[in-house]
Amino acid sequence: MTYRILNDAGLRDWLAEQPELSKRLGGVASDWSIREVSDGNLNTVFLVDGPAGALCCKQALPHVRVAPDWPMPLERALYEARYMRAVAPAVTGLMPKLFAYDADLFLLVMECLTEHEVLRSALIEDQAEPGFSAVIGTYVARTVQATGWVNQPFETGARLLEQFSGNTALTRITVDLILTDPYRICDRNPEPEAGLADDVKALQTDQILHRAVGRLQDRFLTARQALLHGDLHTGSIMLDGTDVRVIDGEFATMGPIGFDCGLYLGNLALHLCAAPQKAVALRAEMVAFWRSFSEELRSGLQDGSGDMWALSGSAGRQDLIETFLKDILRDTAGFCGLEMIRRTVGFAQVADYSLCSTEKDRLLARQKALQIGRTLIVEGASLRSFDGVLSLMGL
Amino acid sequence: MTYRILNDAGLRDWLAEQPELSKRLGGVASDWSIREVSDGNLNTVFLVDGPAGALCCKQALPHVRVAPDWPMPLERALYEARYMRAVAPAVTGLMPKLFAYDADLFLLVMECLTEHEVLRSALIEDQAEPGFSAVIGTYVARTVQATGWVNQPFETGARLLEQFSGNTALTRITVDLILTDPYRICDRNPEPEAGLADDVKALQTDQILHRAVGRLQDRFLTARQALLHGDLHTGSIMLDGTDVRVIDGEFATMGPIGFDCGLYLGNLALHLCAAPQKAVALRAEMVAFWRSFSEELRSGLQDGSGDMWALSGSAGRQDLIETFLKDILRDTAGFCGLEMIRRTVGFAQVADYSLCSTEKDRLLARQKALQIGRTLIVEGASLRSFDGVLSLMGL
Repeated sequence: MTYRILNDAGLRDWLAEQPELSKRLGGVASDWSIREVSDGNLNTVFLVDGPAGALCCKQALPHVRVAPDWPMPLERALYEARYMRAVAPAVTGLMPKLFAYDADLFLLVMECLTEHEVLRSALIEDQAEPGFSAVIGTYVARTVQATGWVNQPFETGARLLEQFSGNTALTRITVDLILTDPYRICDRNPEPEAGLADDVKALQTDQILHRAVGRLQDRFLTARQALLHGDLHTGSIMLDGTDVRVIDGEFATMGPIGFDCGLYLGNLALHLCAAPQKAVALRAEMVAFWRSFSEELRSGLQDGSGDMWALSGSAGRQDLIETFLKDILRDTAGFCGLEMIRRTVGFAQVADYSLCSTEKDRLLARQKALQIGRTLIVEGASLRSFDGVLSLMGL
Repeated sequence: MTYRILNDAGLRDWLAEQPELSKRLGGVASDWSIREVSDGNLNTVFLVDGPAGALCCKQALPHVRVAPDWPMPLERALYEARYMRAVAPAVTGLMPKLFAYDADLFLLVMECLTEHEVLRSALIEDQAEPGFSAVIGTYVARTVQATGWVNQPFETGARLLEQFSGNTALTRITVDLILTDPYRICDRNPEPEAGLADDVKALQTDQILHRAVGRLQDRFLTARQALLHGDLHTGSIMLDGTDVRVIDGEFATMGPIGFDCGLYLGNLALHLCAAPQKAVALRAEMVAFWRSFSEELRSGLQDGSGDMWALSGSAGRQDLIETFLKDILRDTAGFCGLEMIRRTVGFAQVADYSLCSTEKDRLLARQKALQIGRTLIVEGASLRSFDGVLSLMGL
């Protein structure tokens, strides 16, 4: 069957033809309630409730949902399905289950997280139960173990490179919106808010910054260390109490591990700029993220049986792991800085700034994010410990 | 038509059915003389002469030619054809022309280099006209410009990753024979020649060396900088006076640029160990290689319009290029060392050692190669200039 944009009725008809999915919902098609809950920038999302259970159905549109004149290849849904299948065994319970993927409709059918809230919203409402960052650290470390070169024969990584390098439509967004646009004059950049024009101009003429961004562009494009989520911000995470799930893996690509870490930490740091009174709690989240990430990685890589490091005995491997973690830390700092800047002045900004109660507060918050972002980008490459990252954030 | 191993008659019949190739040969099929000249480890090669011209036909066998019980997927011919097509526009005149690729027969039909000699043989016979290394330096730099991230939109590199990551059968050979086997006990390792057993054992128990090899494994697998030839030794180069051509691109994969540089220099250094009286000439070749490579790269990347370094002005870009070259230099030293060691004690050793007139000389030559190789691997990562490489080689 060829692609068509599904509405409630179309989705109902399609689901009724899928015996396994119908069984999960229970009853008959007319018993099911369907509501559209599209929230992200790119896709339509429906929640379907039946007598026996619920499903989440996510369909790719041929354009950006919030910008219909920006075409966007449908294949991103395929990459999201591939991502979920590639990492699911390693992160059971940390992402929704994928029940089905329809290659014609570019439609994913997943476990429904009805009770969960998007982490960004929970943070803004100050309702996130502390400790979520430790789960995310574990999540990233486990995806690295499942897809990197240390724990797997090199053919595993080669296959992932083959399967994900074609995800160029979404990687182009990353290359443009994160790695380039905020540092140049560009139609996609929104008009800066009052008082920020000089700061934006400074970003576009700062040669020291541009050189450091160039090194991060190099890292993003050439350092193919593991399969990245590729868009791991606080809007790609849902939680219900201590149940934390990562969603929206459509940006998946092989890349530098610090990219996932940096985007996550960058979004916590953006929240910190908008809500500096929460510094203690946010610092604790960042520390918990890095601790769980690095501890999980240390233990996971200690006995890795991949081709990379295959010769190393126990002591040699520990040395390699520590060097590896230091390199990840440096990338993390740089990508964290890029995320802070692009989410402050770029095409897709964060809602966290709505926490600022006055225009002046918001301006100061944005300026602080730009300043921390710049420092992380320029000085990140010489960091030696995670405390150094916190220190550059003023924590 | 399905795959079959071609003999003279089978090749003649097939060529007769290809109008364009028949026309290049001239006359009719019975006028053509065909002789098998298979020389490498993996494939059969035929030279076909006709009244109007000649062709070189290379067919992949389903096993290693010199080890019929070692199966080897036919697809390597496809990757060689892809490699030639990917780099041909950038290296016109520096590789044979590819006239046809038959996907069923896994057969490449190329320009015939009748007057050319393999560089390794020419070196052994002391008949190579000096200056060939400058051409190879240019060749590597131009392939980098055509396939790296600085001069091309990132989609080009992504497509190359997609097209070449599946070349796992031959990359597995690299991972095993170059990056792993010489440093462990392994059935594929030949019995060391008399007097070398202790040196081989030392390689297998040297933890400092193993740690450094681990870092190079990491570089080879994760640093996907440009499309590599992947097997750029002196047996993959043919020359006729000053006409120098690179052949045998079947190991092609995206990888660290220093891998191609290091393999080439490593083979010159192996020749040096076997023929130390030629030190002045070989030093000059090495200097010429690095000079032409780095100068071509400097000028080629100065105006690159890729996504990587897109923000850099002239001064910033020069700085990025110099850092880039220094990183390539360090990789080069390490991979050079790996090549020297594996070609001295590993599965596929070099004929250059036949130049040693006594067993004792040969033993000393091999020991010197192992010592230089180890030093390059362990100390390469802290080099700051090409003179440092020469100095580690005692030049």
